Amino acid sequence: MPQVAILMGSQSDEPAMEKAAEVLEEFGVEYDLEVISAHRTPEKMVEFVRDAPGRGVRVFICGAGLSAALPGAVAAHTDLPVIGVPLDAALDGLDSLLSIAQMPPGVPVACVGVNNARNAAYLAISILSLHDDVIAESWAAFREQQRR
Amino acid sequence: MPQVAILMGSQSDEPAMEKAAEVLEEFGVEYDLEVISAHRTPEKMVEFVRDAPGRGVRVFICGAGLSAALPGAVAAHTDLPVIGVPLDAALDGLDSLLSIAQMPPGVPVACVGVNNARNAAYLAISILSLHDDVIAESWAAFREQQRR
Amino acid sequence: MPQVAILMGSQSDEPAMEKAAEVLEEFGVEYDLEVISAHRTPEKMVEFVRDAPGRGVRVFICGAGLSAALPGAVAAHTDLPVIGVPLDAALDGLDSLLSIAQMPPGVPVACVGVNNARNAAYLAISILSLHDDVIAESWAAFREQQRR
Amino acid sequence: MPQVAILMGSQSDEPAMEKAAEVLEEFGVEYDLEVISAHRTPEKMVEFVRDAPGRGVRVFICGAGLSAALPGAVAAHTDLPVIGVPLDAALDGLDSLLSIAQMPPGVPVACVGVNNARNAAYLAISILSLHDDVIAESWAAFREQQRR
Amino acid sequence: MPQVAILMGSQSDEPAMEKAAEVLEEFGVEYDLEVISAHRTPEKMVEFVRDAPGRGVRVFICGAGLSAALPGAVAAHTDLPVIGVPLDAALDGLDSLLSIAQMPPGVPVACVGVNNARNAAYLAISILSLHDDVIAESWAAFREQQRR
Amino acid sequence: MPQVAILMGSQSDEPAMEKAAEVLEEFGVEYDLEVISAHRTPEKMVEFVRDAPGRGVRVFICGAGLSAALPGAVAAHTDLPVIGVPLDAALDGLDSLLSIAQMPPGVPVACVGVNNARNAAYLAISILSLHDDVIAESWAAFREQQRR
Amino acid sequence: MPQVAILMGSQSDEPAMEKAAEVLEEFGVEYDLEVISAHRTPEKMVEFVRDAPGRGVRVFICGAGLSAALPGAVAAHTDLPVIGVPLDAALDGLDSLLSIAQMPPGVPVACVGVNNARNAAYLAISILSLHDDVIAESWAAFREQQRR
Amino acid sequence: MPQVAILMGSQSDEPAMEKAAEVLEEFGVEYDLEVISAHRTPEKMVEFVRDAPGRGVRVFICGAGLSAALPGAVAAHTDLPVIGVPLDAALDGLDSLLSIAQMPPGVPVACVGVNNARNAAYLAISILSLHDDVIAESWAAFREQQRR
Repeated sequence: MPQVAILMGSQSDEPAMEKAAEVLEEFGVEYDLEVISAHRTPEKMVEFVRDAPGRGVRVFICGAGLSAALPGAVAAHTDLPVIGVPLDAALDGLDSLLSIAQMPPGVPVACVGVNNARNAAYLAISILSLHDDVIAESWAAFREQQRR
Repeated sequence: MPQVAILMGSQSDEPAMEKAAEVLEEFGVEYDLEVISAHRTPEKMVEFVRDAPGRGVRVFICGAGLSAALPGAVAAHTDLPVIGVPLDAALDGLDSLLSIAQMPPGVPVACVGVNNARNAAYLAISILSLHDDVIAESWAAFREQQRR
Repeated sequence: MPQVAILMGSQSDEPAMEKAAEVLEEFGVEYDLEVISAHRTPEKMVEFVRDAPGRGVRVFICGAGLSAALPGAVAAHTDLPVIGVPLDAALDGLDSLLSIAQMPPGVPVACVGVNNARNAAYLAISILSLHDDVIAESWAAFREQQRR
Repeated sequence: MPQVAILMGSQSDEPAMEKAAEVLEEFGVEYDLEVISAHRTPEKMVEFVRDAPGRGVRVFICGAGLSAALPGAVAAHTDLPVIGVPLDAALDGLDSLLSIAQMPPGVPVACVGVNNARNAAYLAISILSLHDDVIAESWAAFREQQRR
Repeated sequence: MPQVAILMGSQSDEPAMEKAAEVLEEFGVEYDLEVISAHRTPEKMVEFVRDAPGRGVRVFICGAGLSAALPGAVAAHTDLPVIGVPLDAALDGLDSLLSIAQMPPGVPVACVGVNNARNAAYLAISILSLHDDVIAESWAAFREQQRR
Repeated sequence: MPQVAILMGSQSDEPAMEKAAEVLEEFGVEYDLEVISAHRTPEKMVEFVRDAPGRGVRVFICGAGLSAALPGAVAAHTDLPVIGVPLDAALDGLDSLLSIAQMPPGVPVACVGVNNARNAAYLAISILSLHDDVIAESWAAFREQQRR
Repeated sequence: MPQVAILMGSQSDEPAMEKAAEVLEEFGVEYDLEVISAHRTPEKMVEFVRDAPGRGVRVFICGAGLSAALPGAVAAHTDLPVIGVPLDAALDGLDSLLSIAQMPPGVPVACVGVNNARNAAYLAISILSLHDDVIAESWAAFREQQRR
Repeated sequence: MPQVAILMGSQSDEPAMEKAAEVLEEFGVEYDLEVISAHRTPEKMVEFVRDAPGRGVRVFICGAGLSAALPGAVAAHTDLPVIGVPLDAALDGLDSLLSIAQMPPGVPVACVGVNNARNAAYLAISILSLHDDVIAESWAAFREQQRR
């Protein structure tokens, strides 16, 4: 049962976003990975987001470039935590970084660094660790080793 | 019957967006003006956008600050032309300008200048002029006078 | 009879702007494509813009990099809708994006994303759809397919 | 017992960060609020961060302007989720936004918008909701009301 | 007989541009000062620019904010040196600075600093000094005094 | 006898700045071309600048990247017009563009676009044209041909 | 005998730069404070810089806005450490920050934050502490108290 | 005995930071060179910084990209001068430049240009020159030769 849903706005975002998947795999966290656009396939997106909790999803990771509406659009339709990954499709990713970080009050998105899908996965793991002792232990071990 | 729908993401956007309304009034163009957020009230937005053509709407003008998802979200649900007005809620409006302009291919938004709701209205009028001789005449007269 | 005029400031802009032409062709929309500079050939530009309506042109698409004066200069001489495409000739296209978007009130230009000539064409098509049922049908079908 | 620790780099950040506290109070979530600087009082910070889990803290909210090292420095010393709030002390907050968002892989920080301490609190609530049914219910009710 | 023509895109630019006039007066250089917009009154602009050499104008000083097309548009129609003054109407004047500086090869504009109309006048004086001994003497005296 | 002095801060700037030389050659304008740094060889620079008028120099063209102090430093020591060319050594040349354009009142520099040494030469030619009929004729012919 | 020379490009920089003086006074470090412009009074500057070591100066603190050439120009003429303070005269100080930080290799300047003259003084004190036990003791005490 | 400690946040920073080492070697200045991350190995960092003075270190040179917390984190734990080198890992290094330059008052860092590790070394040498006559002589000779 997937605990994390990795979404991206375009097929071309897949190489960047697969790094999130790799990190989740290292921690044994199951995930869905889908290409769904807030702008091109908005209904498919809403449907996916609404069904996600029923499938076990606890955290969304959404990567997008340019206008980067996906993380915010997902956040608009879910109460689960949403992590946004700005992708560098133009302007060094400054456009997507601002689009993702500057959400209006009441609809939060957790923005990570440009192209930093790995950190989105680590952030998801830190969140899941709060109520999953197995993940928490792996996460603590990872951090411990990193600190040495 | 409204030909233009003026939408804005937040009540606080109204002073800036009313300038679009004023321009439309000068040209005798009827309009709806609504506060609807892509992030906070996404379903209400979709409903409004879908019903708009039936009410006579031919062009959308959407003002938003920060992440400024509204113009793109409206464009995702309509085939009508969508004009986006980036509002200066932070960072001199650079965040909203990029969010509105940098749409992905296939879902166009016509971006005007920061806080420039008047130009959004003028752009709408130039579009309506293509198939409305009365508006076209007023528009030509306005431009003619401006050029002198 | 061309319904859209695609203009660009320099020969080197042609690869980027041909994407607008390709989109228009997919929709069976005829177009002119010309290299005309607001700065180097201003009179030729004015002449072209003034004659365009007589040739059937309803919408201008103008691509330019750097100072990117072309869209605004065309808008100064026509009452037809003008779509501007900022091209990335320097500074990631931020210079041309600002030059095109930040038009003064009364002379609107519809700015799309950096290098996004395709969206300029889609925007033109959404405008033409308001008074051309054949284009409207193709446009609706395109959007419908995209949404699936 | 505090579930959230609100930290800020300077006394002058308090008006901005109190908005996070207000949101948490509306949801009945207890919190610590401390002025602790990563640069001026690094040892006090490390001590606070290490003791926090023992006091019940599950999520950190860290506000900082300028170099804005606090969120990252807290993240370096904890495995708990860390939310960073860039504050506008200079350059419209662009400096702090980049400092907080652009963390290196392996040490994630969840960045929210400039001065948007409220969204930091909402994000914390969405995280706590994953394992606290009372908060989850309030959060769902808040979102539900917002969507209407 | 005016040796310098000071043009500005909008009435609201006058306080900023009058500083150029003040400097010219200190040096006894006659000037025209006109509000002429490249976007709103393009024909009036072309006419003015073409007639200027006949009236004695040797240098243009053009102030504009936002898209700031005026200096480039004047340069397109004259072979005389054109000095552009970016005015801070939005985005701290970065938009107008880039619009004025980033001219295409072959149509040069001499850009000075944001709101720095005085330097535009000093630059004009340094140019006129090359072939006017009276101005040259005043200019040398001014610089000499400044250097002390 | 050189009428223009082309200076550049570093040997690595030569490919970019030679374009200015090429343009001057096309117009038969003699020039000096020297690598002189305001930061590394300040005395050599002052000496060169002071001697230049005696050698016939009427206009300086100074290219520099990064901090780009050369144009301003030359302007500090001469009353002749100084044209600055920002070179793209980092940050897309935004650093040098701002360093060159944002001169303090009283010490003007004429800034052209990033890497646009050709426009610096054209600007120099338009200045020399004011008092040299041969250059003026070539310049007018060049512009005339360009406009066609 | 002054150990630090505080220079600034313009009289209007004095309020910002006096904060450096205040810090130095707290540590009992003597200083010169002069208004000297790299652009307007270059010879006076060179003279001052050359004489400074003889008067006891060990460190320069140079504040400047806009093009902000002063720190680099001082560095060009001295082998002593030079600290640059970018002042916010325009563009939020981004222009002066880049002008001061982006020095060419071989002529280093130590850049501190925008308007942060106090940090320039603290940095000077940390440098003087390396060979002055009295200052070192005060500095250590200040830092120790700050850390508590 | 190392007089300078060169630290960098990541192994990938080594090619850029070795240029600082090369410069120090040319001046016969001994140095430590270590990969230590403020975010990943904060305790190792604190330990290293605290032990450094005992090993003879007088100046720190810290290179980092992205959030670039290392220079500030080192400064938080030492009273010695700290020089920060922003590295271009994203956004042309603008993120790290701002993170390093915009330190809060009381914890100074001397920022040099993006990727300009050589200038960090030269700055360190100018500081060491204040109390080391051998280095001072080499430094003066280097500068003297550079000025010729």
